[in-house]
Amino acid sequence: MAGMRALTFQAPGEVAVVEVAEPTLTGADEALVAVRTAALCGSDLHIYHGRVQVEPGFVLGHELVGEVVAVGAQVQRVAVGDRVVSCFRSACGSCFWCLRGQYQHCERGRTFGHGKFLGNLPGAQAELVVVPNADLTLRRVPEGMEDAKAIFAGDVLGTAYHAVAEGGLRGGERVAVVGLGPVGLCAVQVAIALGAAEVFAIDSVPQRLELAQRFGARPVPLGEQTAEKVRGATAGRGADLVIEAVGSLPALQLAIGLARMGGRLSVVGVHAEPGELHVGLLWFKGVEVRLGLANVIAHIDPVLALLEAGRLDPTPLVSHAFPLAEAPAAYRLFDRREALKVLINP
Amino acid sequence: MAGMRALTFQAPGEVAVVEVAEPTLTGADEALVAVRTAALCGSDLHIYHGRVQVEPGFVLGHELVGEVVAVGAQVQRVAVGDRVVSCFRSACGSCFWCLRGQYQHCERGRTFGHGKFLGNLPGAQAELVVVPNADLTLRRVPEGMEDAKAIFAGDVLGTAYHAVAEGGLRGGERVAVVGLGPVGLCAVQVAIALGAAEVFAIDSVPQRLELAQRFGARPVPLGEQTAEKVRGATAGRGADLVIEAVGSLPALQLAIGLARMGGRLSVVGVHAEPGELHVGLLWFKGVEVRLGLANVIAHIDPVLALLEAGRLDPTPLVSHAFPLAEAPAAYRLFDRREALKVLINP
Amino acid sequence: MAGMRALTFQAPGEVAVVEVAEPTLTGADEALVAVRTAALCGSDLHIYHGRVQVEPGFVLGHELVGEVVAVGAQVQRVAVGDRVVSCFRSACGSCFWCLRGQYQHCERGRTFGHGKFLGNLPGAQAELVVVPNADLTLRRVPEGMEDAKAIFAGDVLGTAYHAVAEGGLRGGERVAVVGLGPVGLCAVQVAIALGAAEVFAIDSVPQRLELAQRFGARPVPLGEQTAEKVRGATAGRGADLVIEAVGSLPALQLAIGLARMGGRLSVVGVHAEPGELHVGLLWFKGVEVRLGLANVIAHIDPVLALLEAGRLDPTPLVSHAFPLAEAPAAYRLFDRREALKVLINP
Amino acid sequence: MAGMRALTFQAPGEVAVVEVAEPTLTGADEALVAVRTAALCGSDLHIYHGRVQVEPGFVLGHELVGEVVAVGAQVQRVAVGDRVVSCFRSACGSCFWCLRGQYQHCERGRTFGHGKFLGNLPGAQAELVVVPNADLTLRRVPEGMEDAKAIFAGDVLGTAYHAVAEGGLRGGERVAVVGLGPVGLCAVQVAIALGAAEVFAIDSVPQRLELAQRFGARPVPLGEQTAEKVRGATAGRGADLVIEAVGSLPALQLAIGLARMGGRLSVVGVHAEPGELHVGLLWFKGVEVRLGLANVIAHIDPVLALLEAGRLDPTPLVSHAFPLAEAPAAYRLFDRREALKVLINP
Repeated sequence: MAGMRALTFQAPGEVAVVEVAEPTLTGADEALVAVRTAALCGSDLHIYHGRVQVEPGFVLGHELVGEVVAVGAQVQRVAVGDRVVSCFRSACGSCFWCLRGQYQHCERGRTFGHGKFLGNLPGAQAELVVVPNADLTLRRVPEGMEDAKAIFAGDVLGTAYHAVAEGGLRGGERVAVVGLGPVGLCAVQVAIALGAAEVFAIDSVPQRLELAQRFGARPVPLGEQTAEKVRGATAGRGADLVIEAVGSLPALQLAIGLARMGGRLSVVGVHAEPGELHVGLLWFKGVEVRLGLANVIAHIDPVLALLEAGRLDPTPLVSHAFPLAEAPAAYRLFDRREALKVLINP
Repeated sequence: MAGMRALTFQAPGEVAVVEVAEPTLTGADEALVAVRTAALCGSDLHIYHGRVQVEPGFVLGHELVGEVVAVGAQVQRVAVGDRVVSCFRSACGSCFWCLRGQYQHCERGRTFGHGKFLGNLPGAQAELVVVPNADLTLRRVPEGMEDAKAIFAGDVLGTAYHAVAEGGLRGGERVAVVGLGPVGLCAVQVAIALGAAEVFAIDSVPQRLELAQRFGARPVPLGEQTAEKVRGATAGRGADLVIEAVGSLPALQLAIGLARMGGRLSVVGVHAEPGELHVGLLWFKGVEVRLGLANVIAHIDPVLALLEAGRLDPTPLVSHAFPLAEAPAAYRLFDRREALKVLINP
Repeated sequence: MAGMRALTFQAPGEVAVVEVAEPTLTGADEALVAVRTAALCGSDLHIYHGRVQVEPGFVLGHELVGEVVAVGAQVQRVAVGDRVVSCFRSACGSCFWCLRGQYQHCERGRTFGHGKFLGNLPGAQAELVVVPNADLTLRRVPEGMEDAKAIFAGDVLGTAYHAVAEGGLRGGERVAVVGLGPVGLCAVQVAIALGAAEVFAIDSVPQRLELAQRFGARPVPLGEQTAEKVRGATAGRGADLVIEAVGSLPALQLAIGLARMGGRLSVVGVHAEPGELHVGLLWFKGVEVRLGLANVIAHIDPVLALLEAGRLDPTPLVSHAFPLAEAPAAYRLFDRREALKVLINP
Repeated sequence: MAGMRALTFQAPGEVAVVEVAEPTLTGADEALVAVRTAALCGSDLHIYHGRVQVEPGFVLGHELVGEVVAVGAQVQRVAVGDRVVSCFRSACGSCFWCLRGQYQHCERGRTFGHGKFLGNLPGAQAELVVVPNADLTLRRVPEGMEDAKAIFAGDVLGTAYHAVAEGGLRGGERVAVVGLGPVGLCAVQVAIALGAAEVFAIDSVPQRLELAQRFGARPVPLGEQTAEKVRGATAGRGADLVIEAVGSLPALQLAIGLARMGGRLSVVGVHAEPGELHVGLLWFKGVEVRLGLANVIAHIDPVLALLEAGRLDPTPLVSHAFPLAEAPAAYRLFDRREALKVLINP
């Protein structure tokens, strides 16, 4: 059996590029994709640190652009030779949740590169990857769009679009974004592209605040007066929509404090633990809260359309690119928080 | 100056019917209403116990049906002689929030019988009451409808309707109601009237479970197997919409546990404190949470229409009625939790 | 090759039960169903009369309940031996429209029994039928539910639910239903089940008006004063939501006249021709209009849940049942408008 | 009694600036505004031509920016000295329609400058104007914003925002705008500001197509291939949302032809007559249609916020400005279609 090179989890703090068996199609709905560009994401670090457990030897990575090299008999929307971007998670298209358009909760959904618990689907930091239910999970990349742009549609920008659109943004509203990692910075772009009159971008890192400002936001350094500044710029009310893109309790508390009475809170930062929240304040403010995994399959088409139209452009977020062989170094760099977005080219 | 009799707060645990100055109209948008039927509500007990502070001598009560005896020059929708029901809280109709239809957050809104903090508006457990912005706050009672039915539209049923409708119920969904006080029992009725295929009614009091069953719900006694029973009746998923009508952290935790992945949670039980919540579970489930005061002004018309059509009937909830002179005894009875809904007839 | 008996189109006005080749599975997503109960629908008459053209020998019928006798390798939601109801039209689950939840517009959707133009999918008035994409198109019938009830979920009740729910009904509104054929009568039931405070049921046939009244509607005989009666019962405004279930220009004009300023109009009666409309009146009234084929796949689950809960019951609409051999007589009876709903039992 | 100068209707084709009685406050909710900038609008021409009848001597005009010179006792949101923009039509804030947020259908709403039939409210092409229910109808102009920009918020841009937002635009969709008068051109701007990935701007006048292109649209000259071009740029589907900003049957027919299956049609061009429509095509396509007067009161806040943020800028539409004394010449110029937007400065 032929082999291929792939970045695999070995032990907490240790990943390695090794030879693994070449994946092959087993279902009529699948596609086999030769990866051209993969990426590192914050959730890869959870695995790298052992907080999210995967089996040793499991191939990591869930963001990819590549070329279709084989398709199952039922695949209709993509063909061999197509350049495609994949959503980070698949969906079946026919279960209770898919029928309601909640593809992120698909009961047969599988996440790339997250081990047995999330569907046992080998990851994208590899030469080849099998994509389940390709008609839903893959999209053709518009002609002329660079891989480094398109790859954002399958995860980071899809999540940012979810935060804004399912957060119910109406044109002319004021938005606050808490946390300016890749998702937060993309949320700044999406909020402006979808009609926010003003975006307050909140973080403690000056470079990120500068980038947010370049994208059209008003930077608000994290600190004692953060909420006061947002209220001062909104006639004392607070933001209509607050996006929490950190995934920590303090960030969530700040987000609650930034929302206006009757406002909305969209939590795309990942939370996994219980914690003390000011439930009474939430109740008093009457804030609507939406949280959880983003529905990227539902949003990838409009994201690609906005990328193609030049209304979104996440390429300034790409700080580094490595060949696959150097992926372990890329993990170490990313883990030291010296990079914003790192690409891997198999 | 003429006087009138009214139930007033005196000190924690002490209310008294005393003679107070007769209220008079001071604004062109106001109406003066001779109260025929008032009611006691759970939030009156918060005042009674001193947890919510009002000034000694303040007139209590925020639910009422009565007859209009005078109107300001600008009032157009009600006239002297009309029998009317009042929302428990007024709204201005033109502020930032009213323009967005969020009347419950009106920046000039005033709540009856809740002291200075909530607008300094004397309450309804009195012979006469002044109603601000009568065109928005009052509605004519449909001909032939008993006071004891109509009075629910201004608070309890309006809150129940809010819980269900703003909770996004779609016809054919499964609903769980946590807590079968008046609001929870009314939520059972509303959920069925608005198309729930099944309502799981959860409480520990057998009489309340029986009443919920009479209203069409499936009673689920509060206990160790509550969540299992709801999941067992929903193909393992949990409820599409969960209504929390208690206002305690354990009730809220239970409600989170009852919701399906991608479900909705509508919290109308009053929360005032911080507390430990399983934020990670909420995030994992991707539950949408709506909480806060109900938008009764927005919902009183459909509630009255459903009452008139016989689709809702809260009268089985009325357990007692007292003349105004005996209102202090009514408070004591209500405080002992020996009553479900108590009316006061001035 | 084995044969089976099926009702086929022969020529305008002529259908016949003949022996045809037994259908077999050709796709991994398909199911083969032994039909137990099929039905006649108004659109079958369009074919019968030759207004909708199908090839001679084509098997007709698009409503069915039956038992699964074989499934393709990818089918997961139904299994051999399951009793199932089918939607009248299939969907792929992954095209542009399916991704937006608009299954009725699926670019690969196929309608049973409507010839080449609508997907070349042999119909259900036969002993056996192949169902494409069975995971989306079929649903298990809840235990204990009669075929004669469940069959409505796949077309007539699904269409009625669509008319009401996608017509944006809010609990407590007033609804007018123009036309009391099976879809209109089911719309009466659905509107009440989903919270209409009042339903005005409009037709010229006394028996249909009586049935609508039995279902809870207020019957309004079609005539000169129809609009006046509806306005008289709605404070002069007209209905919040009007459902047009006829498919003729006069019915549509009447429906426009019945809607209130800012109301909604849901047109499920089939229109195929141009015609003179009072566009200016529509514009002046600011009515929202939704029209077109119903999204039955999206609605079949809640419809089955409401049937199971006893909140909907279309069985009073079934006026006749015939064995398959007598299906041509059933067509003639139905064509003479002597029947409301006719079942065929292969 | 003091007098003021105002532009009045005299006879079809004849308007004159005359001395009329100075208006005064008669209601506690009113404001008196000294007009600084008024404007001509297409609907003024309907009056000018006598198609819409007003009484001779009636003051015309319904777009204005000015300074508050007096307020009634109940007015709270604006004060003497404030620079304000007015919506073209008032609303009461408490009727059936206002409660549902449909301010354009307010049963006590009055339109400036349209004679007895629309509320007998003297117009804005005058030195002074009385504004009913000022708290809802007026907004303060953000500091630093030119009159010539702000005035668009009260009518043209408010209508364009309505067309796009109530047309249900989702970020990343494709929009077609039929008709590039001021409303159509503003709709182009709003569609882009609110997230359209692409806007097809359709008209026959080259200068208007050029302006649309400058605003970011793809110009499509009106002609035989219009629909083909839109379909060709949308994978053969047609536009997700079509805005009809003309108000003629051919424009409406074209708009229907441009919409995709399951798309949306937003008709803000004024229709007053019956006419032949392809109802069958609408039904087949399953297009949602919204039409009627725009809900400017609901949208003026976000429009002002987007203007203030520089996301909208309608000033390129202003082709002429005249002092009040020359307003009759302005009408003649506008009537010759030699101007796009004409301002009047009293």
